[in-house]
Amino acid sequence: MTQGKIPFFTLVKGAGMSRKSDVRREFAAGNGILDRRLLLESVLIGAAGSALAAGTVGAEPLAVQPWMKAPGKGFEPYGQPSPFESKSVRMIPPPPNPATQGVGAARTPLQLLDGIITPSGLHFERSHSGIPDIDPEQHRLLIHGLVKRPLVFTLEALHRYPMQSRIAFIECGGNSQALNAPQALPLNVAAIHGVFSCAEWTGVKLSTLLDEAGVDPSARWVIAEGADSAAMSRSIPLAKALDDALVCLYQNGERVRPSNGYPVRLLLPGFEGNMNVKWLRRLKLAAEPAMTKDETSKYTILLRDEKAWQFVFPMEVKSIITRPSPGLALKGPGFYEISGLAWSGNGNIRQVDVSADAGQSWAPAALHGPILPMAPVRFRAPWQWNGGPAVLQSRAIDDTGAVQPARGAFAAERGLRGIYHYNAIASWRIDEKGEASNVYA
Amino acid sequence: MTQGKIPFFTLVKGAGMSRKSDVRREFAAGNGILDRRLLLESVLIGAAGSALAAGTVGAEPLAVQPWMKAPGKGFEPYGQPSPFESKSVRMIPPPPNPATQGVGAARTPLQLLDGIITPSGLHFERSHSGIPDIDPEQHRLLIHGLVKRPLVFTLEALHRYPMQSRIAFIECGGNSQALNAPQALPLNVAAIHGVFSCAEWTGVKLSTLLDEAGVDPSARWVIAEGADSAAMSRSIPLAKALDDALVCLYQNGERVRPSNGYPVRLLLPGFEGNMNVKWLRRLKLAAEPAMTKDETSKYTILLRDEKAWQFVFPMEVKSIITRPSPGLALKGPGFYEISGLAWSGNGNIRQVDVSADAGQSWAPAALHGPILPMAPVRFRAPWQWNGGPAVLQSRAIDDTGAVQPARGAFAAERGLRGIYHYNAIASWRIDEKGEASNVYA
Repeated sequence: MTQGKIPFFTLVKGAGMSRKSDVRREFAAGNGILDRRLLLESVLIGAAGSALAAGTVGAEPLAVQPWMKAPGKGFEPYGQPSPFESKSVRMIPPPPNPATQGVGAARTPLQLLDGIITPSGLHFERSHSGIPDIDPEQHRLLIHGLVKRPLVFTLEALHRYPMQSRIAFIECGGNSQALNAPQALPLNVAAIHGVFSCAEWTGVKLSTLLDEAGVDPSARWVIAEGADSAAMSRSIPLAKALDDALVCLYQNGERVRPSNGYPVRLLLPGFEGNMNVKWLRRLKLAAEPAMTKDETSKYTILLRDEKAWQFVFPMEVKSIITRPSPGLALKGPGFYEISGLAWSGNGNIRQVDVSADAGQSWAPAALHGPILPMAPVRFRAPWQWNGGPAVLQSRAIDDTGAVQPARGAFAAERGLRGIYHYNAIASWRIDEKGEASNVYA
Repeated sequence: MTQGKIPFFTLVKGAGMSRKSDVRREFAAGNGILDRRLLLESVLIGAAGSALAAGTVGAEPLAVQPWMKAPGKGFEPYGQPSPFESKSVRMIPPPPNPATQGVGAARTPLQLLDGIITPSGLHFERSHSGIPDIDPEQHRLLIHGLVKRPLVFTLEALHRYPMQSRIAFIECGGNSQALNAPQALPLNVAAIHGVFSCAEWTGVKLSTLLDEAGVDPSARWVIAEGADSAAMSRSIPLAKALDDALVCLYQNGERVRPSNGYPVRLLLPGFEGNMNVKWLRRLKLAAEPAMTKDETSKYTILLRDEKAWQFVFPMEVKSIITRPSPGLALKGPGFYEISGLAWSGNGNIRQVDVSADAGQSWAPAALHGPILPMAPVRFRAPWQWNGGPAVLQSRAIDDTGAVQPARGAFAAERGLRGIYHYNAIASWRIDEKGEASNVYA
């Protein structure tokens, strides 16, 4: 911890005032990271490109804009974002084959969002055979296999059961895999980290439905199958199914969106994305896992020694800085807030540290509550950019004590040939123009 | 508290099984209200119209539906709800004048939602002159009046400041006014209580911006003005502005929706809806309130003795049952979950009680966390409907000790001529057919 005096001043135009104040600020880490408690205080923003550089007015009234001169639009039954926000959309890479428009992932533009909730229209989607158009009247959920009473549920039947709500993230097992590339690629937050989103999910506890069916003592696994034409299937440990698994009917208050599993999605809080089976159709209790395609040839973690980890379910502790980030250039030296998301599939986030000098020094960020298990936390840290080069990093620690690893340590353990469960510290380099770019540091 | 044996049984078709079990259940209040701890246990649902009445299958496979036989749809940049959910829209009463399509309120269909978050497309809107189509590049926020330095902020400038996020409800001051009618009207949740919603809001603390401007010691009020063509204006106590007021740029993660104030909305957690000024354009510091139209002729609380309360800002403790409710008929006797929302503009919800016998007996509902100040809580209570008449009520208590009043007590204090801040206990009567209706009880 060092202390220093930073000249903070405001250039006031128009009203003929000028002011220059030296505010004693406490540096909490190198290269301009300030104490997080500044978040609770006034922040006087430096001149160039700053808030106050927008100028002040004296007696001059504001311009009366056209939209103040005539009545506005009428009501809409289902509202949409402003047309001026048309860039705030999911990132859809071109499909590998023009015939398979719905295969792959549509990514959340996390760099354009704030808070922790992802609006459902921007929640990421990873689909293996497109998005089925399911008639809820025809849809059924079957529970069978090693149960006393195989059961079929209609949607109406599921709605009779007690429900629970929770805010939870879902992260694709392959999120951030671009950081395994030998050279750092010129990609933004959505392209690297955008198969991560968060919603409030509401549904029936899977344990309630399994109790109805009566689980046979020999059962150890639950094979979950989707009603898409890929019949996407995963094997889930029975212990997880009986713990906190939720058969979700609602997402952010309304019914689950088609791209996220309408009318029924399985939520396995903290577990890798595709285990949260969408369009849930079938749950088969079994003594052994099914060894489906998506848990053998896919979604296993290839290691450096030619071996692979299978059945590694929870997404490890992780954090990303969403602002500043590529495409959101800084407008001159001065104060900025570093803002990002941290999460762990193993519990609560306990701490997030930030660095502006590529990890040489760290300071804790402020965490915005509520801090919930298997939910993202928005972290914020004040930063005084001096206009010189900087490398911004964040490092999360969860309440199991797990610390997000540096890229070198991650690579030393796992190698960089795998594409799943990448959770190493990411770096944005800020150049003298204020442009951010993906780097390895 | 009474105890009793309820025969619970399942009719199993197809697989040739049948089962009848007597489960000892603890009644927590009269007319079938069960102990809330049942939420954590298995619930075996009774026969008629029940989950298990949907039947079971033995070896028969599920039907393979058309959507499993061909690839599904491609990705959408901005997703939408399923076309099968087309009834889940805001309720838009006909405008008093065809020329004023955007004057009045569009109501949230709370009876079709679950959890606490309102999806932004369904967040209620109350507009006084339609929804302006604001260009964010042209929009400005002025802070002036009793300040040392009048300031104008662009959107870009506002984005430079530290932000905070919080989940908060907004309730129109006139919500639930239909319950002041002399006779109970045949209305549903949206029509009675639907100018209430909740979102995660993110923005700059107003206190930060006021510190930048430098508040004159003589200032006591902040006059907030919107950029709609009504220039909707309200006077806000400076103490609230310096406490937890937020100049919001984000709603549920993405930029604030046009109908909720794009590009800038003021959030005053817990205060009546129209003080949370949308399309925020101007904040004038003053020694006295401005006595605007919407705090004199409107949004004052008319009492029984011809007097009125003015400047009653926080919305009082309240709860509503969203399910069962009018339009969502029960399908035969058996188990149901009573589900609803509770909130207080004065703090946290401490407890919610439910009754099935018009308030003769009460039992506490389960509250689903996180429990946050000025945010709604989803409450749930298990209920064994015996097929006879019932009157469902909920009663919230906040952490100031305030208890939601019975309708008679409310009327005795205020009379029923006012239309604002109605927070008395509401009642749904369930008839023998399972239909719910609005009654005074």
